[in-house]
Amino acid sequence: MRQSQLFYKTLKRAPKDEESINSQLLIRAGFIYKEMAGVWSFLPLGLRVLRKIEKIIREEMEKIGAQEILMSVLQPRFLWEETGRWSKEIGKVMYKTQEGKKETGLGPTHEEMITDIVRKSIKSWQDLPLYLYQIQNKFRKEPRAKSGLLRCREFGMKDLYSFHSSEEDFRKYYDTVKKAYFRIFKRCGLDSILTEASGAGFTKEITHEFQVLADGGEDRIIYCPKHHFSQNKEIAKLKTGDKCPICQGVLKEEKSIEAGNIFPLETKFSKQMSAFFTDRDGKKKLIVMGCYGLGVSRIIGVIVEVHHDQFGIIWPKEVAPFQIHLIPIELSSPRVGKDSEKLYRDLQKENLEILYDDRKNVFPGEKLVEADLIGLPIRIVISERTLKRDCVEVKERKKKEVKLVKRGHLLQFLKSNIKLNYV
Amino acid sequence: MRQSQLFYKTLKRAPKDEESINSQLLIRAGFIYKEMAGVWSFLPLGLRVLRKIEKIIREEMEKIGAQEILMSVLQPRFLWEETGRWSKEIGKVMYKTQEGKKETGLGPTHEEMITDIVRKSIKSWQDLPLYLYQIQNKFRKEPRAKSGLLRCREFGMKDLYSFHSSEEDFRKYYDTVKKAYFRIFKRCGLDSILTEASGAGFTKEITHEFQVLADGGEDRIIYCPKHHFSQNKEIAKLKTGDKCPICQGVLKEEKSIEAGNIFPLETKFSKQMSAFFTDRDGKKKLIVMGCYGLGVSRIIGVIVEVHHDQFGIIWPKEVAPFQIHLIPIELSSPRVGKDSEKLYRDLQKENLEILYDDRKNVFPGEKLVEADLIGLPIRIVISERTLKRDCVEVKERKKKEVKLVKRGHLLQFLKSNIKLNYV
Repeated sequence: MRQSQLFYKTLKRAPKDEESINSQLLIRAGFIYKEMAGVWSFLPLGLRVLRKIEKIIREEMEKIGAQEILMSVLQPRFLWEETGRWSKEIGKVMYKTQEGKKETGLGPTHEEMITDIVRKSIKSWQDLPLYLYQIQNKFRKEPRAKSGLLRCREFGMKDLYSFHSSEEDFRKYYDTVKKAYFRIFKRCGLDSILTEASGAGFTKEITHEFQVLADGGEDRIIYCPKHHFSQNKEIAKLKTGDKCPICQGVLKEEKSIEAGNIFPLETKFSKQMSAFFTDRDGKKKLIVMGCYGLGVSRIIGVIVEVHHDQFGIIWPKEVAPFQIHLIPIELSSPRVGKDSEKLYRDLQKENLEILYDDRKNVFPGEKLVEADLIGLPIRIVISERTLKRDCVEVKERKKKEVKLVKRGHLLQFLKSNIKLNYV
Repeated sequence: MRQSQLFYKTLKRAPKDEESINSQLLIRAGFIYKEMAGVWSFLPLGLRVLRKIEKIIREEMEKIGAQEILMSVLQPRFLWEETGRWSKEIGKVMYKTQEGKKETGLGPTHEEMITDIVRKSIKSWQDLPLYLYQIQNKFRKEPRAKSGLLRCREFGMKDLYSFHSSEEDFRKYYDTVKKAYFRIFKRCGLDSILTEASGAGFTKEITHEFQVLADGGEDRIIYCPKHHFSQNKEIAKLKTGDKCPICQGVLKEEKSIEAGNIFPLETKFSKQMSAFFTDRDGKKKLIVMGCYGLGVSRIIGVIVEVHHDQFGIIWPKEVAPFQIHLIPIELSSPRVGKDSEKLYRDLQKENLEILYDDRKNVFPGEKLVEADLIGLPIRIVISERTLKRDCVEVKERKKKEVKLVKRGHLLQFLKSNIKLNYV
């Protein structure tokens, strides 16, 4: 894409009231726009990142047999009365609205709705297991919305729900989802740590969180080389230097961000909402359920908290809005103009995603500073000086070194040295 | 996809309270689930159709230079106070919710929000024109929600907004969008008619609607061979047999559905919200705006209203959830089983989207009745009888004739006779 056409605006400084690294950088680089505390709009660059993450999630969900659906945001009160959650637990953070005499809520989560859909479709053990997910905006009242994309009132979420004929079958899938989550985070450039946590009103069982170590995190995890814990009440009192309750190893404490959580729901919802199936033995039994959340927009915030430096964002390859930033210097020179246009077309033919800085009235220094702020993985600079040697300059955003590469070797260089993912 | 794995359930009869053809058929065929009046969830088959339509829209938006963004659903009251619409006009159909002292609305449309974003980014005539769109769920109070996907409280919408330095530049783009809309509807299998309408509180100017003729429509259009009109007040009194006010031709009246609308906003919003740019002459001027709506989920309803018969839905090729329904009859026969599996794999290799009815315990008649209800464009039946002649049966959903095609010629036949779109 031609940068002169791209709708974005960079800022030298972040607005004063932005305290988090992710909101500061994402605002300054023109990825997001703040509508109010905890409510953000995604500008073209930000939306491209969001779509990349959604694509990764969809691919990994498909691998574990999950089918995508899309439930409504508006949820009828009567469904939430069935579980008693309308006025307690998560119902308290639900935004509510009214039309005539009817009260509806804005979905903070969808257990009631999905259980209702499934109980009307599932008859026998042959219809199970069943894995359904959606990617959709969720809404939660949030008095402490102040960490950019990490804690929002409206946020993108992937929620997966699984339905099983037995606890054993559920446990197997629960492990399958764990592995898929690790793959998703890895592809997003994040090392995630699986921790135990309490059930947050969903279940009395131990649930699991995927935590990412980050200085900007609001959570803390406590760990020894073999075990990780997070907000589980039982271990909440532990601190650095204490002994691990399992292996007696020495514990350390670090700040982290919760990027996903998975819950065994057992038969909590199927019982309250009468979701049965007929088993092999002809008996009517309650469906065993699990639910698995992933903060899609939050992941963007986590990535920026983890991958940045003093100059800007450093996007991991697979989630970057574009892979390559092509920057001609001295674009007024006819030769630079002609050769950079040709390079832009040639790289596009290779199905690479290029942001082409075709702006003529911008100083070279300004272009490079802005490129660092936006943070695409690879920067290619083309100028009179490089062209004299029939070269271009290639620099990875995450590295310091700049390499001069012959134009004829550029594609091969990108493929072999940088292991570029083709789109 | 294997039909045994697909989450869907067909019904012999539609629920009694469903009056519209589109909701009756979409519910019966397992595409959508009703959450409450005017609020629907999309099951896997329905979501696939929704995604196909979104894909068409994105491709056509890109062709006319529009950039995709994603604004929040939650909208702050103070923006709507700037235009005075919080408590009048469209603000009256806005769902509102509260957190502490703060009131927010659920976006019924996004003029205020986009104008706010743009006024902070646009400085000079060089930043214009600018075309921004999003695809997102909108929310409107709707006391008459009763026509399936045609009139909803929550619905998918594509809203495009254009920003110009002059009325003349706006007019050009307005015509460009018109053409893009015709292409979108055509690709969705719909013949649309451009009609004049009143501004619905957005503008005092004449606006335009894209109407699709359908018996299930709630609108009416009045037309002679050369001109079309819809709800414009001036011509609302005209009826069949009257003379066209422009060419004196004889008018006819038919039922229709509004599938899109486009509005010249002039400087209504930029004036109320102080959205300026500096022109070539150095003078500060108001940005000229246009907005362009398209009911994404509604289009699904329109397609079904137009394309169906007594047996079920007849999906146009480009929006069908799958292109081919592969149906083995007598799947218990080892030969049918083996050969249909092979055919399924071979067709998949050609990047065709196949729904493969691999269910063993379902009677042939039931499979065929269900296939007609679901309505994929091409049905391929494979059975002992066809295999004896080394053939399969090919039938287009929209045609009556069944053709016996040699297995070796199948791909060629599909390509040349049915002009299959590859995905």
